[in-house]
This record gives sequence, structure tokens and C-alpha cells, in this order.
Amino acid sequence: MDHRESDEVVESSVGGVAPGDMESNASSFFDDEEMGISDPLLRWQTGNTTSQIAVVGANVCPIESLDYEVVENDIYKEDWRSRKKHQIFQYVLLKWTFALLIGLATGLVGFFSNLAVENIAGFKWLLTSNLMLKHRYHEAFALFAGCNASLAAAASALCAYLAPAAAGSGIPEVKAYLNGIDAHPILAPSTLFVKIFGCIFGVSAGFVLGKEGPMVHTGACIASLLGQGGSRKYQLTWTWLRYFKNDRDRRDLITCGAAAGVAAAFRAPLGGVLFAYEEAASWWRSALLWRTFFTTAVVAVVLRTFIYFCRSGNCGLFGKGGLIMRGVPFKILHAVAISLLTSCCSYGLPWLVKCTPCPPDILDQCPTIGRSGNYKNFLCPPNHYNDLASLFLNTNDDAIRNLFSGGTNNEFHISTLIIFFAGVYCLGIVTYGIAVPSGLFIPVILAGASYGRLVGTLLGPISKLDEGLFALLGAASFLGGTMRMTVSVCVILLELTNDLMILPFVMLVLLISKTVGDCFNKGVYDQMVKMKGFPFMEAHAEPYMRNLKAGDVVSGPLMTLAGVEKGKGFTKERVSTGAADVLRRFDPFDFAKAGSGKGVKLEELDIDDAEMEMYVDLLPIVNRSPYTVKETMSLAKAAVLFRELGLRHLCVVPKSPGTSAFDILTVENLRGWMRI
Amino acid sequence: MDHRESDEVVESSVGGVAPGDMESNASSFFDDEEMGISDPLLRWQTGNTTSQIAVVGANVCPIESLDYEVVENDIYKEDWRSRKKHQIFQYVLLKWTFALLIGLATGLVGFFSNLAVENIAGFKWLLTSNLMLKHRYHEAFALFAGCNASLAAAASALCAYLAPAAAGSGIPEVKAYLNGIDAHPILAPSTLFVKIFGCIFGVSAGFVLGKEGPMVHTGACIASLLGQGGSRKYQLTWTWLRYFKNDRDRRDLITCGAAAGVAAAFRAPLGGVLFAYEEAASWWRSALLWRTFFTTAVVAVVLRTFIYFCRSGNCGLFGKGGLIMRGVPFKILHAVAISLLTSCCSYGLPWLVKCTPCPPDILDQCPTIGRSGNYKNFLCPPNHYNDLASLFLNTNDDAIRNLFSGGTNNEFHISTLIIFFAGVYCLGIVTYGIAVPSGLFIPVILAGASYGRLVGTLLGPISKLDEGLFALLGAASFLGGTMRMTVSVCVILLELTNDLMILPFVMLVLLISKTVGDCFNKGVYDQMVKMKGFPFMEAHAEPYMRNLKAGDVVSGPLMTLAGVEKGKGFTKERVSTGAADVLRRFDPFDFAKAGSGKGVKLEELDIDDAEMEMYVDLLPIVNRSPYTVKETMSLAKAAVLFRELGLRHLCVVPKSPGTSAFDILTVENLRGWMRI
Repeated sequence: MDHRESDEVVESSVGGVAPGDMESNASSFFDDEEMGISDPLLRWQTGNTTSQIAVVGANVCPIESLDYEVVENDIYKEDWRSRKKHQIFQYVLLKWTFALLIGLATGLVGFFSNLAVENIAGFKWLLTSNLMLKHRYHEAFALFAGCNASLAAAASALCAYLAPAAAGSGIPEVKAYLNGIDAHPILAPSTLFVKIFGCIFGVSAGFVLGKEGPMVHTGACIASLLGQGGSRKYQLTWTWLRYFKNDRDRRDLITCGAAAGVAAAFRAPLGGVLFAYEEAASWWRSALLWRTFFTTAVVAVVLRTFIYFCRSGNCGLFGKGGLIMRGVPFKILHAVAISLLTSCCSYGLPWLVKCTPCPPDILDQCPTIGRSGNYKNFLCPPNHYNDLASLFLNTNDDAIRNLFSGGTNNEFHISTLIIFFAGVYCLGIVTYGIAVPSGLFIPVILAGASYGRLVGTLLGPISKLDEGLFALLGAASFLGGTMRMTVSVCVILLELTNDLMILPFVMLVLLISKTVGDCFNKGVYDQMVKMKGFPFMEAHAEPYMRNLKAGDVVSGPLMTLAGVEKGKGFTKERVSTGAADVLRRFDPFDFAKAGSGKGVKLEELDIDDAEMEMYVDLLPIVNRSPYTVKETMSLAKAAVLFRELGLRHLCVVPKSPGTSAFDILTVENLRGWMRI
Repeated sequence: MDHRESDEVVESSVGGVAPGDMESNASSFFDDEEMGISDPLLRWQTGNTTSQIAVVGANVCPIESLDYEVVENDIYKEDWRSRKKHQIFQYVLLKWTFALLIGLATGLVGFFSNLAVENIAGFKWLLTSNLMLKHRYHEAFALFAGCNASLAAAASALCAYLAPAAAGSGIPEVKAYLNGIDAHPILAPSTLFVKIFGCIFGVSAGFVLGKEGPMVHTGACIASLLGQGGSRKYQLTWTWLRYFKNDRDRRDLITCGAAAGVAAAFRAPLGGVLFAYEEAASWWRSALLWRTFFTTAVVAVVLRTFIYFCRSGNCGLFGKGGLIMRGVPFKILHAVAISLLTSCCSYGLPWLVKCTPCPPDILDQCPTIGRSGNYKNFLCPPNHYNDLASLFLNTNDDAIRNLFSGGTNNEFHISTLIIFFAGVYCLGIVTYGIAVPSGLFIPVILAGASYGRLVGTLLGPISKLDEGLFALLGAASFLGGTMRMTVSVCVILLELTNDLMILPFVMLVLLISKTVGDCFNKGVYDQMVKMKGFPFMEAHAEPYMRNLKAGDVVSGPLMTLAGVEKGKGFTKERVSTGAADVLRRFDPFDFAKAGSGKGVKLEELDIDDAEMEMYVDLLPIVNRSPYTVKETMSLAKAAVLFRELGLRHLCVVPKSPGTSAFDILTVENLRGWMRI
């Protein structure tokens, strides 16, 4: 906390002012209409004004932020003035077309993931149970564990070598991007590829993980790919694609993608819209409600169409359209080890429980052999079933369906439910750490449903309610306690079960579990955002920020440029060439923000010595009306401005009205503060 | 557009700067930490700087706006610094308690409205049908029309004499309040009283109107009453009540009230939350989602409990818990005339259609006499029913239920559906103009359902789908086209019908009807807000606002006060007494905003001549860090600030950095612009 440290911090925070993308840098600065050509565009305060209190926590965040502010410069003004009606129409039409494309693509990916998982996993179950019917138990286990281990190795190899960013749920990453954090690999095409195939292999491998988180990430990646504004490499350079070269439109597209992902994973279109609003998005406009609604409706229609097509038997052995899915050598070994553990649990634990006779009225459905169903035979004598095998030796989807099924009281023994709950809970926790795309919804629902069914069985003699309802409420309570979502979990569960009479119960359970959870910590996605080191900006300022002034935490000293500056030049004389000249030479799209990872770096610019002696007129491209605050404003109040308006920089003006020096408060600075 | 006109406009706009509430006036001005005691708190630009373009549309809005800005003055800072943990806990607890109370009260009101309507209307139908069974048709009509006319007169008399603001739906009023428009009678206790009883009488009178709009208004009124911060008149002056003396907390409470209203009207708790978000609120925080969710859950529980209680026959003849409910002598005559017209249609039109034989398989349910049901006898021979009477001579709830009922294809003739559609459509339009509390949902659903059923009957030979489904889709299309809501209408319809399989159809129909409607005009509530003259501030700036600068439309000349000013005084000397003195004399609650209509008026202040010569120190109570923009900022960008942050005033600083003169841009000014 000595002076040396404070100097270092201040110097290192120069980087906070938009290094890398030159155009947004130049255009965010402050200027006056009739400013002289050699006046600096921005005057900084002389001396170190950063107070000693402020320096303590000033760990400026190294990740760049997205910028949602409208840069009002001459080019921008001329651009919208010259926009014709058909261009505006084209822009609006394009937004809807992209929403349609996102819905179509996400629906297709969701459907094919389901289909692939069901066919791979179904084939695995079939082979294993055939061997077991022939009493070749050791071979059966070897085959079962071998299949699982190979699939797990394939999934984690994809993750480890191709796209490490694709591991895990993906919801924290999407949440971070929508909070304005621009970490490039989050939404890269390689991430998309690994997310899809890693998820298929991971879920087929029988891990206790789900496919909803990865589907959300997949939807966001698809949207981001569409929003890149074309690609020079692949000759996709149509003019209309370029309309989306700004962070605001990309943010909207990716919000639609996240909603489409949930809609595809759960076949819950309304749930998708509400998830995007409640959990994923940091900025939301009512127009987005309408657009995400359209996207998820498209997803729902695509899924229905394909499932209808599959009913006629065109989709392989097992294509029924289910509910669910889920680091270099060490990472792969880790995944294989967890896979073996999961295989042992799935195959080994059912040997521990006794066989149960089938209920006499449903002997046609009980027991089931080889295929999915409520009553798995697993080594039992005829007309008996093994209730633990019905849960463990099944896809996660089928296990959940079995737990939720109504009218089947006493199907599962108390001991079975305790073993399954403990097993799934522990496996879920260790599985989430491995390097494959993995969702959290399914493990949480599995654990919650078995817990709820356990409570229902224990209370059975008193409550006389259906045990399937208890399982559902258990799942709701675990979801509410883990993710702290209310409306969207409610709608997703309703859309899954198609039963609205349970709504008040689900609401009550969610309220209680969220309230209890909130007493201890934040939701799981918020914690993961923090653990992954994303500098998330909360909607509300921390209490201590009221004690700080905006002037206390500004970045400085600033780099300043005069109105007409030396550089790769246009004229040999230092005169303002005026807006007309610049407008003739440049197109607004030259200043549009490039897609992720595609911007021109400062180091890549090729400026020769002669050019270094020429002058460039910056006046027409600077932002004439940036947002400003007085340095006496509390940091809490300034933080509200950043969050509500999606700013990246804020000019801090001094309290004495006579001087005209400025400081800059960057959102990176603020994010650093919030991480303390 | 001559200079005289421009001067007038500028002078009249002085009123825009918060007349009436002295404390917010003084505290919104600009100040500097070390400002001298006789320096003006705000320097205004000399001369008329309002440009000629800007004057054209400068019709400053006369209605005051609410202010959601945090006023950072010494008193405020001292207040939160001194807040203890138990006080913060008390504040949070209180918010939830109020949410609970709103839910309880709105649920109760909703239930008792239903009960009253069902008993009054049921008794009326019973008397009428008894007379008709005795073939005394003229007496039956006289009784029917007489009952309706008296109820109509009662409803409109209440409205005309007690609370004219209670007429109509109430949703536009709530929407306007939540947009920051402070028109006092909107949420007054008298409005609440008339809304409840006017609605009961109006719906009982058989008008083609619904009770959901009035329920939304009722919920908002209840919330507003709770948020008044107690009442000195009724000795309700507990300290904890005073925490809510600011516009932000009141806004949140009233949003909860609006959600509770929808939840009570439709028994659709999720629909209520989404309605509040999608249609009612202009400012929303994710914390509100959680709070409205709680409130509507309480409403759902209250309604279920009471309906359960009523099943045991404790609630009069007709208490089944239905779906629905709806100016001086001329206003009353108008209402009575429409009532007679409605009576004539209801009683007269069924004479025009032929009797239909009952379907042979449900002879126990068909025909029904006197009570509600699908098959009304109405003068037909035994085992026959009159299908038009089944729609017209019924409560609106029952008519909708009949239209939605599945498995009843061919129950209604095409001619019947055409007559009913035309009748309801025209009656709905003329009814909405009368002075009784009236909702729009029910007429729209009635017209849409009969239209949908008509289409279904026409397409019957081709589609082979259930006509009840067509009725539902017709209702969805009319709702989407009228109100332009998507997600909330979807959820409300799902919660009404308890059938999730129709979701993709409903989504598709809503998308189409909203898109078609949006090509022509805005939604009905937006149009009503405009017709009622509320200066609604849209989320998006109009395109022409990009052509204007913030400096073009400022209010001026400003009234300025020096740091220490003459007035009802504290000291005889013109010295700054400092914050400590002021903090000793005043409590933060002395500067809290009073409840609607309760603030101290400037004219009511009693200042004698001696006091006029004394000095008052304004420095500790002025806002030290108001939001500011440069005068070159486009009006569109400034409007975003107003809307996102809920501001009432914005300081406009001049472009030349050397001067320190300021202007004020008020939200009233901006609202005036948006009305052009």
C-alpha cells in the first residue's frame, strides 16, 4: 500500500483504455465542435490523483470488455442520415432472418445430438444385456466399461486438444459474454464443434451429466458465428452481413441463441425465453422478449417435425427423442477414471439389492429386458424386477422419467432410493470436474427426484400423495437451491411434465429452496463465473462503493491525441480536412467492430517513415458526446451508469467548473473492483 | 414559429422544474464540494439559446414526473452510513412483508368480486328463466333489462360521482404510473373503492366487459395504499412504514400489485409475473421477477384456499369460482342505454335461431334450464337446445367456457356463431366507452373465440380438428392482435386451459397476429395511454430526435439559488452552517417524498417577514453529483439516459470547457417531445 505500489497500479491501468482496437479507441475520446486542430482531444489531470484508499483494490481486469455505447461521431451521423428506407427494412428483416436461422440450426443440432446419444447408448445397453442374458457377466462388464471408457476418452480428447473452452456447462461462459466480457475462445467455431460432439460422446458414455448447459453454449456459438459479419476467408462478404458489426446486435443474437439452446434441450420454448431473461442476460430490452420468443417457437416446430418424422422408424433403433444428454493426457485419464467409477456404480450397485415381484396388473410391461422401461429385469427370476437397475442401468433421461412416473407407488424400495441418491449425488459432483461438455441440470434433477421420491416413500403412510409428485417437487427444490432461478425453472418443469395443477406446489418449493440457498451463498453459475475468473459486473453496486468517489478510481495517466495528429497520414499540412473529406474516403463499415479475434492489431499496422511525418485528422471520427460524470459522484452511482447503459468508458470531469481536465473511468477498472 | 411564440414556450417551461415539491427541487441542483456560500448553485446560460427548430415541438408536459434518481447529498450519505444491520434487515423484511400483504389483499378482493358477480348474475338468470318457464316473456324481459339497467346505473354513478379515474380498464393508467407519470387520482383510495364495486356491478349487469383490467388496477391501488408510508390522519405513523417514502420503492410495490391483479383475475400466477414485465412495467430489475413471483404465488394460494372452502357450499347459490368479470347524469344515461342494448341483444337475438336436438349421448346434461351449462333450453321443446342462448344468455365466463369446450363439434351452427361474433364485437366496442370499470380481455376473448370456432366449423370437413381448439386459437389471435403481448398471453392461455400440447400452435398464432397488427398501429393499451393524454416515454427514441441536440430543448431560464439563501431561516448571518448543524436539525425522512397528493405546497408555507430576512443553508441538501451531458449530445442519446436511469432532470453542460454555465433538460420536456 506504499506509494510505489500505487504508481505501478496506475501505470498498468493504462492498458485499460482499449488497447488493440484502434478505431474504438480514437472514437471514444472527448471533443468539442469548434475545437482547434492542435488542442488535445482530452486533457488529463496532472499528477497522481488516485487516492490511497482507492489503490488498495485497484486490480484492473486484464480481459477486455465489449462496448455498447453509441459512438456519436461525424461518420455515424452521416451514416444514419443517409440510410434509406429500404436499408432500414433490410436491417430489420435481417434481424428476424438471423433469429429464424438460429432457431433452425439450434433445433437441428439439438435433435441430432439426441438421436446420436440414443442410438449410441441404446446399442451399448443392448450388447451388454445380451451378454448378461447369456450369464457372461464379466464380459458384459468389460464391454460396458470399455464402451464407456472409450467414449469418455474421445470426449475429453476433443476438449483437451481442440477446444479447452468447451469443457463444462458453458452457461457461465455465455453469462460472462452477455455481461460484456470479451474472452475470444468462448464462442469460437472450434468450441462449437467440440461442444456438440464432446457432449454426444460424454452423455453416451453414461456420465452423470446433462446436455442442457452444452446446448445453451451451442446455441450461443451458432448465434455468434452468424453475427461475425461474414468471413473474408470463405468469401462471405455480402454487404447485408456487415450490418451486424457492432457489439449491441451481437449481444442480442447471442441472447436468442441461449434461449434457443434451452428450448432445444428441454423442448420447452417458453422456458427458454425465461431462462435467457432470468439467468443468462445482463442487458435486456422488451424487443428481445419478442425475438427470443420467435426463435424458440422455431426450435419447437423443428423438433416436433423431426420427432414426427422419426416416429415412422426412420431414425435408427432408439430414436424416440429423449429428455437428455452430457485436459491433455491427464485430463483424458481423469475422464476415463471417472468413467470407470461410473461404470462400476451402474453395473455393480444393482447386485446389492433384492429382486421385487412385478405388480400383478402390468405383467405385460414388467419386467423389461434390454430396452428402456420402468422395470429392468437384471438377473431376476421371471416376473421380477431389480429396482436399482431400473435407475442406474438406464440413460439419465429414462431414470428421470421412471422417478417422475405417477401411479407407481412402492415401485422403488427406500434402500434403493438412498443408494441411488447417494451414488448420483457423489458421481454428479466428481463428474462435473472432468474435461467434457457437461450440463448441471440433469445431475441436479436426478438427485432431487430421488431425494423427493425418498421423502414421498417415507411419508407415504401419512400423505397418501403420489410419489411421482414428490419426485418432481424434489427436483424443483434441488434446481431452485442450486441455480436460484424461479420463473424459468417453474416453466421448464411445467413444460416437461405437462401438468399445470402442480404449479402452486412447485412455486412454493422453489421459493423455499431459493430463500434457504440465498442465506448461504450465490447460485452455482455465479460461483462458476467467479471461479473461472470472469470479472462479472453485478446489477447492484457493493455497499463499500458508496464510500468511494468516481474520481478515486480513474485510470491514468491517459494517452491523449490532438485533433489533428501525426501518423499514417492523409495530408502533409497540419490542418483539419473537415468531415467531408473523411466521409469521402471512408465507409462507416471501416469503423465497425470486427468479429471476435479478427480486429487489426496495433502492431500489425505497417507505417513507414514518410507516413509517420504526415498528419491524420481525427476530429470527424471522435465521439462528440461521451457520457460524463463529476468526480464527486459516488462510485456506486457511476457503476449504475456502466451497467444500465453498457458503457466501456466514462469521462470523469473535475469538480471545479473552471478547469477542463478529464479522467477516464473504465469498466475494466470497475470489474476489477467488483472482484475484490 | 415567430420569436414571440418561442419566448412564450421558453417561459412556460419554467414550470417544468419541479414546482410543488420543494425538497426535490432544491436537492436536484448542481453543486461543488468547496463552493462559496453566495455562489449560485447553478449558473444558467444568458440569452435564449433554444434553437428555432426545437421550439416547434416544445410542448412541455403539464403532468409531473416521478424521480428515480438517488439524490446524493450530505443527508443521504449520513443516512446510509449510519444505517445499522438490523435496519437493513428490517427494510428487506418489510419489502417481502408488503409483497405478501399485496398478494393476500388482491387475492381476497379477486375472490370476493368473483363471488359477488356470480351470485348477483346467477340470481338474475334464475328469476328470468323462472318467468320464461311460465311463458311470461314480456315480464321476463322487463325484469332482465331492469336488473341490468339498475346495476349499470349503480356502476356508472359510482364512477361519475366518486372516482372518474376508475372508469375503463385501468391498465393504461397503471402503465402510465409505472412510466413515471404522477397523476394523483390514478391510485387514490376512492379509485380503489369504485374499481372494486363498479366492476362487480358492471359485470353483473351483463355488459360485454371483463374484470381483469380492473383487477390489475385494483392490485396497483392496494400496493400504492401500502406504499404511502402510513397516514397521519389515521394515526398510522410507525417508523418502519416510512422506509418506503421514495418513488423507487413505490414503483416496485405497484409492479407487484399489477402482477397480483392478473394472477387474481385469471388464476394465472406465472401469467401475472409475465404480464407485469411485458406490458405494465417500464423499469424492471431481476430482483422484481423474484418478488412478483412471490406475490402471485400468494394470490394463487389464497384463491385455491377459498375455492376449496366454497366447494362445501358456504358461498351462496352460485359460488363456483369463475373465469371472469367489467360521467355524471349523461354518463349514467349512456351506461343505461348500452345496458338496454345489451339486454335486447342477449334476450332478443336467441329468438331468431332454430332449436337444435340434443346429442343423444348426453341427454342428462342437455338441455340445462336456469343454471349455467353448455345447452340452454330457452323456449325449445324437450331435448332440444337454443345454441345462441347458450352463448348470449349466460355470463361471459360461461360463454367462453362453452366456446372453448372440446368434443362438442357441431354444437353451434354457423349462423349462430356469425350472429354472436357480430353482436359481441359491436357491443364490446360500444361498451368500452361507458363510465364503468371495464376490462378488455373478456370481450376480445369472446370475439376471438367465436371467430375461431366459426373458422373451425367452416374448415370442419377438411381439418378434422376439434372446434374448441379453433376457438382457443381464435382467442389467442385476437389477444395478440389487440394487445401485442406474446409471452404473457401465451402463459395466461396455457394456465386457463391447462393444456400444454397446444403451445406451438398458440405461439405461431400469436406471432402472426402481432406481426400483422404491428404493420398498422400500436397495441390498444399504448393507444389508450396516448388518447388519455399521458405523456408516455417510450423505450426507444424517435428517429427525428437524432437530429436534435440536448442543448436545443433545454428548459430555461432557470431559477437559481445560492448556496446560502434567504428564506424561512436558521441563522441571521449569511454563513454556511455546515452539514453537522443540518444533520442535527433534520431527519432523512423530512426529505423523503410524501405519498401522492400529500406533499407540502409552496403556497401553504407560512413564512413571516422576519423569517424572510433570515438565511437558510442549502449546501448540505443539494445533490452533489447529478447526471450531466454535454449540450452537443443528441437528444436521442440523452433520452436513453432518462429512460434507463429513470431521471427527472439532467444537467446540460456547455461545449466550451472554460465556462461553467448549465442548463436543465427535464423529463417533462422530453415527454412533451415524444407526444408530437
